[in-house]
Amino acid sequence: MAAEQDPEGRAAARPLLTDLYQVTMALGYWRAGRASAPAEFELFFRQSPFGGAFALAAGLRDCVRFLRAFRLLDADVQFLASVLPPDTDPAFFEHLRALDCSGVTVRALPEGSLAFPGVPLLQVSGPLLVVQLLETPLLCLVSYASLIATNAARLRLIAGPEKRLLEMGLRRAQGPDGGLTASTYSYLGGFDGSSNVLAGQLRGVPVVGTLAHSFVTSFSGKEVPPDPMLAPAAGQGPRVDLTPRVEAWLERVCAQEIRALFRTTGAQFQAPWLESVPIAVSNNIDEEELARLSQQGSEVNVIGIGTSVVTCPRQPSLGCVYKLVSVGGQPRMKLTEDPEKQTLPGSKAAFRLLGSDGSPLLDLLQLAEEPAPQAGQELRVWPRGAQEACTVRPARVEPLLRLWVQQGQLCEPLPSLAESRAFAQRSLSQLSPAHRRLEPPAGYQVALSEKLRALVQRLSAGAPL
Amino acid sequence: MAAEQDPEGRAAARPLLTDLYQVTMALGYWRAGRASAPAEFELFFRQSPFGGAFALAAGLRDCVRFLRAFRLLDADVQFLASVLPPDTDPAFFEHLRALDCSGVTVRALPEGSLAFPGVPLLQVSGPLLVVQLLETPLLCLVSYASLIATNAARLRLIAGPEKRLLEMGLRRAQGPDGGLTASTYSYLGGFDGSSNVLAGQLRGVPVVGTLAHSFVTSFSGKEVPPDPMLAPAAGQGPRVDLTPRVEAWLERVCAQEIRALFRTTGAQFQAPWLESVPIAVSNNIDEEELARLSQQGSEVNVIGIGTSVVTCPRQPSLGCVYKLVSVGGQPRMKLTEDPEKQTLPGSKAAFRLLGSDGSPLLDLLQLAEEPAPQAGQELRVWPRGAQEACTVRPARVEPLLRLWVQQGQLCEPLPSLAESRAFAQRSLSQLSPAHRRLEPPAGYQVALSEKLRALVQRLSAGAPL
Repeated sequence: MAAEQDPEGRAAARPLLTDLYQVTMALGYWRAGRASAPAEFELFFRQSPFGGAFALAAGLRDCVRFLRAFRLLDADVQFLASVLPPDTDPAFFEHLRALDCSGVTVRALPEGSLAFPGVPLLQVSGPLLVVQLLETPLLCLVSYASLIATNAARLRLIAGPEKRLLEMGLRRAQGPDGGLTASTYSYLGGFDGSSNVLAGQLRGVPVVGTLAHSFVTSFSGKEVPPDPMLAPAAGQGPRVDLTPRVEAWLERVCAQEIRALFRTTGAQFQAPWLESVPIAVSNNIDEEELARLSQQGSEVNVIGIGTSVVTCPRQPSLGCVYKLVSVGGQPRMKLTEDPEKQTLPGSKAAFRLLGSDGSPLLDLLQLAEEPAPQAGQELRVWPRGAQEACTVRPARVEPLLRLWVQQGQLCEPLPSLAESRAFAQRSLSQLSPAHRRLEPPAGYQVALSEKLRALVQRLSAGAPL
Repeated sequence: MAAEQDPEGRAAARPLLTDLYQVTMALGYWRAGRASAPAEFELFFRQSPFGGAFALAAGLRDCVRFLRAFRLLDADVQFLASVLPPDTDPAFFEHLRALDCSGVTVRALPEGSLAFPGVPLLQVSGPLLVVQLLETPLLCLVSYASLIATNAARLRLIAGPEKRLLEMGLRRAQGPDGGLTASTYSYLGGFDGSSNVLAGQLRGVPVVGTLAHSFVTSFSGKEVPPDPMLAPAAGQGPRVDLTPRVEAWLERVCAQEIRALFRTTGAQFQAPWLESVPIAVSNNIDEEELARLSQQGSEVNVIGIGTSVVTCPRQPSLGCVYKLVSVGGQPRMKLTEDPEKQTLPGSKAAFRLLGSDGSPLLDLLQLAEEPAPQAGQELRVWPRGAQEACTVRPARVEPLLRLWVQQGQLCEPLPSLAESRAFAQRSLSQLSPAHRRLEPPAGYQVALSEKLRALVQRLSAGAPL
């Protein structure tokens, strides 16, 4: 898979946007003759963000762009040579020079999917050395995108479907690309647009805006507006002089409830459109303030949100991890005294089991070789963290992970951003009210099949494979 | 000033990384015939971050790179035409096509300077239309860089000068560029290095790393390490077999205090270097945990910090603003009911007044045309927020703002990142203990000259200029 022109202007990230230890480990694998051993990693989070029950998966599109463009340039390899031990075998650098992602396969939740703790957002398989090197950039591309999409989805749930929500946080973003990512994925999560022009140009996000205080203060009152005489909207009738009209109305408007004034004025002048002139607000709006603005009877139509959507102050990082689950066809797991940090071994499949009302009951993880669960059949599963198995009879079963990239080749076109946005809203609407509720939500169960649980038990006990 | 090759790989930001309203306002200025009116903006913050008394100024280097490369491409202008009203005069787009920063002048605090509320980090002057368009990208480039540098400086103050502090938060960063910015400016703020390879390649940050759990779990115990026989460090004596040696020591090491074991072992085997083998720790380290690890007697040498340095969870945004202070040679200010949001009008100079012990007493803002304050002479100044003037006799006076870019030309080479890092540490060491203390710090005073205060009073009263 050769590097290709990036239709969105530049690759989502560069290969050296990675932690040095990935390169150290790559050298270790290479020296041990294991660079090409087939390996599989899973990318997931351990806890849903913001105290909610769910997250939205996002960032896949950027990951695919990154993988397709992945090549180390000569200058990159030279830089790595300058930071690795001076006696490193030059053949290792030749190996790096020839690397690409033509051996890499990616299964993933579609963008905008509901995601739950421990269920892989991405499964990445391929030669051990390459898929190890991908860890940091993939985490970097998925974690923040999913965090922002989830944050935006929560704000949308609070605001309800009618309010227009605009992301205006570019100046508060953590770095220029943080701003671009935030604008893109807050749209995916349910916002209506962004002030960020680059997000419009590169990602097709609708762009919006008003004006800054500096525009007002730049006029001292002596400058004449360019077109003080306004023509009537209908094209007929006399032109009116804007300036005295503004001056006359300013004092009255500032003293009254705005919407009521619009209604009165609209009725008085037979201008019914005036009743529905949108009222927009912004200024440090967070979840609590948004809830107030969205209460029944609120006349606010448009809400601009900056810092609290872009920087996610309640939880500024999703904390995704990327864990090895198999190498050379053998399952691997991380054993630790902290049960939350223990990983689930083996190449897996994931299914969402739905109830008769169409809402998800639980997500099931099982070994890849097991047959898919069948709708209408009773299953015995092991909810994570529980000591007992339980039974469930799903009315419907949805496979969660789709094959997007096989041996470096894109298998099907990625949905557009707008399609993923619509999918996210559909997914959220299917969630039961108890799981959708922001606080305190009912916990959503993720369960293991009997076979996967048996494998965990066997490996935890240190038994040979 | 033509676009030029960017030595660091790409411009720090693109011109369309801006809020749409900047372009709307640009159109407004252009239609009013005011595009070229000389204007000046100041970029500053209103409150020091994290509850401390100070911030570190950072991001100037990226701003200069951005200004020097600033040109709207044809595709950019076409995109803007697609989002502005369809009847926009095509001559406006011709104006945009010809824009560059050849008329822009920038005064700024050197990178790594101590910065205080209301004192400009940047003063940007030039044609109104252009300097308005620069608002969002400059805020985006300065705010997060300064926030990260300040956060890193606080962590350095807590850790003391001896510990090696490493930034390892790339995977937790808010977008790929967020990661690059964080690695660069945490180094400027006092960290010793970063795991981020790209920050090493593009910015010269020292790169460091260990290994991940996946490396450990990728070996099942059956694979033979590549070089199981180790030669002695001194080059003489028998080679030892690594594997049984590791197995024998593992159980004993995990059960004891590590440094004591190093000492005992070093003494027993006449290997004194073993006593000083660095001990490194990481895992969710924040200010409180760092304080514990840095207590006297701690044997930890190296501390890796990720999420809490990179995402600044205590305050994920500095909240810088960019305000118009003069246009057409006339001072402008924003009047508001919120006194904290009121701006200081006019083109200004800023000075740091130092006491006889060399520590800063207060920062003084005055009108650009006033003579600089003199060391040893008593001054009457108005501390912000105070109702009374006070007098101060500085032992030394330092001008704060330096001319970096004049009419688009770089006036002097920017210091290297390492030089700015050293400057930041020197600046911090000169701060009095009361101001350097993290919580609760003594507030640092910023004061106005009599003339500047009189101008504020006059404009607040609505008097003609």
